[in-house]
Amino acid sequence: MINLSKINKSIEPYINFSEYYEQAQKKNQKNIEAISISSFNKSKQEIESRLVNLKYVINNEWIFFSNYQSQKSKSFESHSQIAALFYWNSINVQIRIKGNIFKTNKEFSDKHFKNRLAGKNALAISSNQSEKINSFSDVKTNYKIALENNDKLFQRPDYWGGYSFIPYYFEFWEGHDLRLNQRKVFEIIDNKWIDYIIQP
Amino acid sequence: MINLSKINKSIEPYINFSEYYEQAQKKNQKNIEAISISSFNKSKQEIESRLVNLKYVINNEWIFFSNYQSQKSKSFESHSQIAALFYWNSINVQIRIKGNIFKTNKEFSDKHFKNRLAGKNALAISSNQSEKINSFSDVKTNYKIALENNDKLFQRPDYWGGYSFIPYYFEFWEGHDLRLNQRKVFEIIDNKWIDYIIQP
Repeated sequence: MINLSKINKSIEPYINFSEYYEQAQKKNQKNIEAISISSFNKSKQEIESRLVNLKYVINNEWIFFSNYQSQKSKSFESHSQIAALFYWNSINVQIRIKGNIFKTNKEFSDKHFKNRLAGKNALAISSNQSEKINSFSDVKTNYKIALENNDKLFQRPDYWGGYSFIPYYFEFWEGHDLRLNQRKVFEIIDNKWIDYIIQP
Repeated sequence: MINLSKINKSIEPYINFSEYYEQAQKKNQKNIEAISISSFNKSKQEIESRLVNLKYVINNEWIFFSNYQSQKSKSFESHSQIAALFYWNSINVQIRIKGNIFKTNKEFSDKHFKNRLAGKNALAISSNQSEKINSFSDVKTNYKIALENNDKLFQRPDYWGGYSFIPYYFEFWEGHDLRLNQRKVFEIIDNKWIDYIIQP
């Protein structure tokens, strides 16, 4: 689930987004919040993609959480433009987004961390995300140590927090028979959202 | 469905891939062939992601088809490294791939085009992929004209064909409760595939 209670519905593509979201929700879309985030690591000249869970849209900020020492953080620092992609197979709709990413303000990250499950926080605290480790049982041991260290479980560590991206481009893609797909684009040109249809 | 009959199973991560594919297939994974391809357009300094249908793995070439005048073709020409991502929600498995991309050989593209449905070919012939158009009814008109032009329906146009990518990196990610996700990486180092476990 994505918290859309504070989404800015005066932004036209956000209305389309909310409508598709509702349709997918009605079809019980699994992992509706899963979004692929693709980043470019300038020093390696390498693109990487991974799924994250989108947690909120607040005004025009699209927010997920991450370890700040992870590979993706390094990519975001070197190149702040990202591509994001939803695919809801229950309604065969793909939503392609381009935006610019930055760290969410600390107060918001603190608040979010305080309200998470203890178990999730223990993992956020104990894991050096994406670093090599000898075995999965070492992961579990580190996790248990953090979980037992109860007094720190709701205190957000500096190395964990939100990322916000602000989209400047959307494509809403509806899959249809024989590839007669319907595609509608919204993009910011001269500070205004404009829209047009593109070919399948 | 992906045609895996000619996948090279002497390559270790390809064995893992085939096993997860089978598991997802048993769970009737919808759109099992849908893969996100992320590319970098050097002149725009911009990452873009979109889904394509992966059609074959032949030896170590992972093959899908596209219009060669599309936006993604321009990106592939400017930067041949790509990121690819599968997510099979029926088994909660994500497969992250990095590779290098190039055009599939023409004979293979010809053969594939000859064996497709007439309706799909009419669309491939009639659509200037991703170009603006006035209305969706214009898309349908162009499509009907191509479909009625029967003598050319199985002759591949130059502007349409396969893309092959050869992976040099895989991450197999299994989602588990409380984010205790299991992650295993395979990558080519000094011309050899090595593998290791990374933290959730």
